[in-house]
Amino acid sequence: MAVMKTRRVTVPAMEALLGRTMPVLDHGFVRVVDYMGDDTAVVSAARVSYGRGTRRLSDDRGLIRYLMRHAHTTPFEMCEIKLHVKLPIFVARQWIRHRTASVNEISGRYSILDREFYLPQHDVIGAQDEKNRQGRGAALSASKARKFLGILSRDALKAYDHYERFLGIKGVKGDKTTEKAVARELARIVLPLNYYTQWYWKTDLHNLLHFLALRLDSRAQFEIREYAKVIAGAVKRWVPLCWEAFVDYRLQALKLSRAEAAVVRSVLEGRDPRKAALGLSMRERAELKESMGIDAPSDG
Amino acid sequence: MAVMKTRRVTVPAMEALLGRTMPVLDHGFVRVVDYMGDDTAVVSAARVSYGRGTRRLSDDRGLIRYLMRHAHTTPFEMCEIKLHVKLPIFVARQWIRHRTASVNEISGRYSILDREFYLPQHDVIGAQDEKNRQGRGAALSASKARKFLGILSRDALKAYDHYERFLGIKGVKGDKTTEKAVARELARIVLPLNYYTQWYWKTDLHNLLHFLALRLDSRAQFEIREYAKVIAGAVKRWVPLCWEAFVDYRLQALKLSRAEAAVVRSVLEGRDPRKAALGLSMRERAELKESMGIDAPSDG
Amino acid sequence: MAVMKTRRVTVPAMEALLGRTMPVLDHGFVRVVDYMGDDTAVVSAARVSYGRGTRRLSDDRGLIRYLMRHAHTTPFEMCEIKLHVKLPIFVARQWIRHRTASVNEISGRYSILDREFYLPQHDVIGAQDEKNRQGRGAALSASKARKFLGILSRDALKAYDHYERFLGIKGVKGDKTTEKAVARELARIVLPLNYYTQWYWKTDLHNLLHFLALRLDSRAQFEIREYAKVIAGAVKRWVPLCWEAFVDYRLQALKLSRAEAAVVRSVLEGRDPRKAALGLSMRERAELKESMGIDAPSDG
Amino acid sequence: MAVMKTRRVTVPAMEALLGRTMPVLDHGFVRVVDYMGDDTAVVSAARVSYGRGTRRLSDDRGLIRYLMRHAHTTPFEMCEIKLHVKLPIFVARQWIRHRTASVNEISGRYSILDREFYLPQHDVIGAQDEKNRQGRGAALSASKARKFLGILSRDALKAYDHYERFLGIKGVKGDKTTEKAVARELARIVLPLNYYTQWYWKTDLHNLLHFLALRLDSRAQFEIREYAKVIAGAVKRWVPLCWEAFVDYRLQALKLSRAEAAVVRSVLEGRDPRKAALGLSMRERAELKESMGIDAPSDG
Repeated sequence: MAVMKTRRVTVPAMEALLGRTMPVLDHGFVRVVDYMGDDTAVVSAARVSYGRGTRRLSDDRGLIRYLMRHAHTTPFEMCEIKLHVKLPIFVARQWIRHRTASVNEISGRYSILDREFYLPQHDVIGAQDEKNRQGRGAALSASKARKFLGILSRDALKAYDHYERFLGIKGVKGDKTTEKAVARELARIVLPLNYYTQWYWKTDLHNLLHFLALRLDSRAQFEIREYAKVIAGAVKRWVPLCWEAFVDYRLQALKLSRAEAAVVRSVLEGRDPRKAALGLSMRERAELKESMGIDAPSDG
Repeated sequence: MAVMKTRRVTVPAMEALLGRTMPVLDHGFVRVVDYMGDDTAVVSAARVSYGRGTRRLSDDRGLIRYLMRHAHTTPFEMCEIKLHVKLPIFVARQWIRHRTASVNEISGRYSILDREFYLPQHDVIGAQDEKNRQGRGAALSASKARKFLGILSRDALKAYDHYERFLGIKGVKGDKTTEKAVARELARIVLPLNYYTQWYWKTDLHNLLHFLALRLDSRAQFEIREYAKVIAGAVKRWVPLCWEAFVDYRLQALKLSRAEAAVVRSVLEGRDPRKAALGLSMRERAELKESMGIDAPSDG
Repeated sequence: MAVMKTRRVTVPAMEALLGRTMPVLDHGFVRVVDYMGDDTAVVSAARVSYGRGTRRLSDDRGLIRYLMRHAHTTPFEMCEIKLHVKLPIFVARQWIRHRTASVNEISGRYSILDREFYLPQHDVIGAQDEKNRQGRGAALSASKARKFLGILSRDALKAYDHYERFLGIKGVKGDKTTEKAVARELARIVLPLNYYTQWYWKTDLHNLLHFLALRLDSRAQFEIREYAKVIAGAVKRWVPLCWEAFVDYRLQALKLSRAEAAVVRSVLEGRDPRKAALGLSMRERAELKESMGIDAPSDG
Repeated sequence: MAVMKTRRVTVPAMEALLGRTMPVLDHGFVRVVDYMGDDTAVVSAARVSYGRGTRRLSDDRGLIRYLMRHAHTTPFEMCEIKLHVKLPIFVARQWIRHRTASVNEISGRYSILDREFYLPQHDVIGAQDEKNRQGRGAALSASKARKFLGILSRDALKAYDHYERFLGIKGVKGDKTTEKAVARELARIVLPLNYYTQWYWKTDLHNLLHFLALRLDSRAQFEIREYAKVIAGAVKRWVPLCWEAFVDYRLQALKLSRAEAAVVRSVLEGRDPRKAALGLSMRERAELKESMGIDAPSDG
């Protein structure tokens, strides 16, 4: 990447990151290909919209926090980032659900996919969580994890052998299969979901923050969370003021439902919260206990 | 599905289709769950926009054809359809790239996936096409196809066995693996791309026609084309006038590039097309020959 | 509107509303043209996604509340509504910023616009609010309001006279202007922003609720809030369970920033909130006082 | 704008354009605020997708033309541009219908709008076109144009006087109106549609080209076409290969409907086109005559 002169808004910390491959999982990565804008780009757009209304928010930080706090989201769309990502197919299938983004994924119809698949590390091979229907609980024992990995690994390798055989690349001697290859678009369907794919993914800062809010969450699957963490690290360097506001007003914000707010208010006002708590579901009771320390037993 | 009374626009042919499972491939299907609007809904919206401008186009058919011809696409967004689709994962991965749609897919984090996978029929197991990098050419010989299917089938079955074993559903006697199951979200990554998934997919008529234009195309992969054909059949019943216009002005329309149009014009005017053809690429020459019968050799 | 039989999901309360013109402001209206889905449609889509995961949430209400609470928004996209709206242009300009919707607006290039403009009622002609840069404060005095309305009305009428004159509809005798009319697309630019326009507007329930969350807010301009209220009334009849969940978990939910949550926690735990309050801005202090009654003076 | 060093893809011709105000109409402008990517960025993304499939298209120009020709549109989404635009409100209302873009418009609720309005030049004040319902025909006579402009100008000036009076900026002596100002959000509704607004507008190259295809068209209103022309000039400098392909395969391409293609084919094959022409509407006959010189009278 040649160094050029530009009059565009430039972020030295991002320049240092450009083109650098940030590893994720066992074979994946995130690489920043390009970016547009910075904290001041958000501010400039906001000042167009709110004009004199932004005067009192004299400094950039204050304005950005105001925008984030009041969900004035459009100025955050004024920054854009383009990433090159290598990720397992099952992660790609979660990721692609974020529709407001541009994607160019490697196509198994045109190209032969690489022989690279994901194997989780021992300590993240969780058992099914009993309470959380979608998540993992405690790690499996070492021996069970080894068994799991063994099967996963053998299946993936064998699938790739078959893939290559279908493509006529690796034929057993004397096997006429190699003479005429199966179409790539068909051959690939033998590959399991832990194979790696790659894509260019481009989105704006607002949609990226929404992606991060969902994918940094503890309920997101471990593997996509790993990608979210690496991207979050890049965002923090890219737009530090936006990131700080995002953490304060979104990532670590606390949302109380109508009923929860009533319970908190009753405690604050010295009243017995039990009456207010009648509107809470079991789940909400548990969550309120955890977040606020309020114990609101259902029975009086 | 109970029969109710409604004052909404209703299409008898679609009512007959509602809830019926239309089979696709070996285990897939398309089922119309709900619809909104019909040909007249497109017309009503257009008459709001173009008001008096639509008076001369007195009949609905003429107006719909005018809209389609001039790419006035917004009135076609006024119809909506919701489908329940069962489809192989590799098809789902192509399909999901159409971003302007609503999707609820079965989640392998919450549910245990069914033991159903796609095996192509013998006659559609094509060899890699030499010219068309993304497509299939002639069918493989019967014996080769059988071999391909054998491997594909055995791999899929074994993967599902492993999947169940991870989930602790089907443990070999004495195998302690069954005691503590691997989290569903991890267990599923052993499954290959030919496994079936399901989703609710909802989109508007404009975006659906765009989907069909791309996926009915001969360059689309056979498997997704099968779905497109079935959906096209439903669309034809649902909005017959829109469908007719779509066929005439889009599906079977011919697009000539600037240079191609010049060649055609020169032939029509009795001039030698070779000079005009200088701007054509090899590929364009071939395509023009095929679509218009014009032979324009590159050398004079 | 003829009564037809359908096997689609049908909501009697919406059927009663179909085609009825619900007045808004002085000449505007909202009319439900069509709808797709109901509360059970949200549930059906969610059960596809979460499968066995939704079993414990045995009833529809519980599941809908779970979805709303955890921002599982996609099932709410499975309902769709189409409205016919008549609204002042300055309201249309705010409304159109909601991008995920389909719109067919009357075009001043094709049609001659009606002579109808918006005049606010006396009691909503607010003075500029001093604190809230974007809003209105106390109502003007009756005499000032009358003056304002007088000017607004005269200007609107005169503009329409000129509009008609440009179009050659209403020429003063002997005025040759009428002979050749100015193009409609140019003539209309003389009209002020309080003139009414009309459109068909179609969107899904998720995006509609987002629209309502923003436009029912006290910070939204009074005029668009009037439309939001009328639409909210229709949504309440259409999907009563979704509406209830929306009110509890979004409309009347309380969002505490990281710093605010710390202050609330310190009070709940009997500690002095002043230290925790150091991270709050002036604005946040005021808001926390209002929502929770917590007084956290900046100085110790 | 300071000159910085960057390793991002940089286009010298765009650097020269950055921040320069390109005038449009009487008071409008387009200013390039920022850009991301260039021709090679489209190529890089395509090579990720099509991999080996792009090898034979060894040069960038060939690949870009292939992508444009076959409507492989996603790689064009990999370039992004941000513009600052000053434009009349009636133009903004057409422009905003392009939904896939990010916008920050000056808000009349926060800011006091400038006293600047659009007056068309004499030679573009067209009469209503008789055939084209949406367009302008021949220019009005000088005297009529003068009258039109006189009215338009006086109305605009008077509206602004009233606007200021509402805002309490410019009160007639002794007029108590100035004491308490009408809220900005209400005061502005007196302004006509030819007043200028401003916005930051950011979109990707694919959507920008779609915007240009529609807005450079002769059927687009003159005023928005002026903006499209200026933007087209910038795009040509920014991504010259994409622009060339866009002109050849889209802007100057010729689309023949199924029936039109049949007529052209019959002429090329020396057959009488009249039979084939039976499927053509009057309008299509006229258009075919114009584009191809084929005269196909409806009667045999």
